[in-house]
Amino acid sequence: MPELRRDPIVGRWVIIATERAHRPSDLFHIHDAAQGGLCPFCQGNEDKTPREVYVSGRPPSLPPNGPGWKVRVIPNRYPALKIEGDLDRAAEGIYDRMNGIGAHEVVVETPDHARQLKDLSEGEIADVLGAFKARVLDLRNDLRFRYILLFKNQGSAAGASLEHSHSQLIALPVTPRQVQEEIEGARRHFEHRERCIFCDIVMQERKDRSRLVHENDDFVVFAPWAPRSPFETWIVPKRHESNFEGESRERLLGCAQAMRTTVRRIASALGDPPFNFMVHSNPLRDAPSPSYHWHIEVMPALTQVAGFEWGSGFHINPVPPEEAAEFLRKVQA
Amino acid sequence: MPELRRDPIVGRWVIIATERAHRPSDLFHIHDAAQGGLCPFCQGNEDKTPREVYVSGRPPSLPPNGPGWKVRVIPNRYPALKIEGDLDRAAEGIYDRMNGIGAHEVVVETPDHARQLKDLSEGEIADVLGAFKARVLDLRNDLRFRYILLFKNQGSAAGASLEHSHSQLIALPVTPRQVQEEIEGARRHFEHRERCIFCDIVMQERKDRSRLVHENDDFVVFAPWAPRSPFETWIVPKRHESNFEGESRERLLGCAQAMRTTVRRIASALGDPPFNFMVHSNPLRDAPSPSYHWHIEVMPALTQVAGFEWGSGFHINPVPPEEAAEFLRKVQA
Repeated sequence: MPELRRDPIVGRWVIIATERAHRPSDLFHIHDAAQGGLCPFCQGNEDKTPREVYVSGRPPSLPPNGPGWKVRVIPNRYPALKIEGDLDRAAEGIYDRMNGIGAHEVVVETPDHARQLKDLSEGEIADVLGAFKARVLDLRNDLRFRYILLFKNQGSAAGASLEHSHSQLIALPVTPRQVQEEIEGARRHFEHRERCIFCDIVMQERKDRSRLVHENDDFVVFAPWAPRSPFETWIVPKRHESNFEGESRERLLGCAQAMRTTVRRIASALGDPPFNFMVHSNPLRDAPSPSYHWHIEVMPALTQVAGFEWGSGFHINPVPPEEAAEFLRKVQA
Repeated sequence: MPELRRDPIVGRWVIIATERAHRPSDLFHIHDAAQGGLCPFCQGNEDKTPREVYVSGRPPSLPPNGPGWKVRVIPNRYPALKIEGDLDRAAEGIYDRMNGIGAHEVVVETPDHARQLKDLSEGEIADVLGAFKARVLDLRNDLRFRYILLFKNQGSAAGASLEHSHSQLIALPVTPRQVQEEIEGARRHFEHRERCIFCDIVMQERKDRSRLVHENDDFVVFAPWAPRSPFETWIVPKRHESNFEGESRERLLGCAQAMRTTVRRIASALGDPPFNFMVHSNPLRDAPSPSYHWHIEVMPALTQVAGFEWGSGFHINPVPPEEAAEFLRKVQA
């Protein structure tokens, strides 16, 4: 059973994933590919994965766990957290631990091995976002889970080992620090000003325009004021909404359009770099929040985390966001 | 002029290092080596670097910026922060910025290109720690600086491009988040219990022994309870002391012995992996703290920071610290 351990000084939780392979290179890697050369995510190879928990696009006449799908969600064969069991919170002297309970799923974004996220149509990307939403709506019924992180690692330098286009979902029994800090910072801003800080940011970015990359009716894409890495780009809904899963299919189409142009611009500008994206949303079952605002953060994996970053939490970014945004605005998408 | 920008939501500062080379691969890299094949850190090439700010071991009969030294500290030729100017804190709409004022220095640990940190004697490592201390004592007189981070990147995967053994120092006008969170967490523990949490940890680790790697009279080396990465190892003084620069030469010798065995054990156990270490100490000019306790964190660079870590601040560690410690205890050092 994997274990969640809390750092006694700063309160950071760490997953000690004892049952995963012990080689660090195995983290987040899906091993099946290496076992026989067949890609387990390709259409026709559905029997090479655990049984699907969600599928879109397959006609009702076709059986489950076979071809005919557009997006397919499956449990990760080597999950960081286990779905079965109780949390069993316990102390060990001054330390805190609990069982590593959670869900770890893979969202296969397309049946076609040759197409990356940037090659998908807006409708296809909206289907991927729809799969995210469906899984959140299902998993939030499990009262052990407090937060679901949706994210993508594309390219081996960004943590992916399987090239078939996919994203991931991890449901956690605690709200991660990074999100908790955003929620608390946003709450402090709201207490002072009775406004959502993300709404304020959206307004300033749309007015200032120097960091703006793209906008459509519902979403704005910009380089944030203090980016952790070169070409970090945020996709933020214009209308206040705290929960990703609160968005309609129509607005997810707007999000898909914004995401498509973002990943295409980053690919063109930087020569198809490895990248990560993360969806940040309000914790599960919290009331809709007037101060927090869901969004997507896209991070090309261009820099290394080294001693300075580990030791300080500071990041050094050699590319001002105004230059990155200008570059992304001008590039062919 | 580089700029410090504050994230308006979580308060994280980022250095936008506009004057550094714009290729992300240039971060933290010392370029001279590539410019002509000569290593600027080798004895005899002192004229290839900025003028030294500290040197140890050179007889008084020899001129500065020439051979005869044991440890040599020089300004980084391509600093992340600039030493001259005022902070000029300012708002830009809802955002905050200040000038990127700070010091960025390189500590050349040996004149000999072929020797890494693990090849140095205890006395030589104590000289390196002595150089750290001397630079902190000098730079803390500059009232613009609030914190000095001492760290090492060894190996290109850990952020180093020059193989000649060196560490770095960055003096910052703000206390970095990571350290601030430790200080606040330690203060909360002290308020509840009137004990230093690091002293409590040292006591539990010495009693429990399952995560213990090594101890001598003054220092204890152990794998922390909730390590962010496999084989993360901490070196902590047994006697409470909040400030690194408060340690005597004699106690720095004890620290050097602990550091030497740590880096040698990690090198043997993991085949000379790239690694980082960071010294965490009380902010400059703060009164000695009863709740904070300086220490060194050593992190082999074995895992990648991917979408899950970026998005959550969570880390997944496939190696339990008890296994790592057992392995490090048993290996030939």
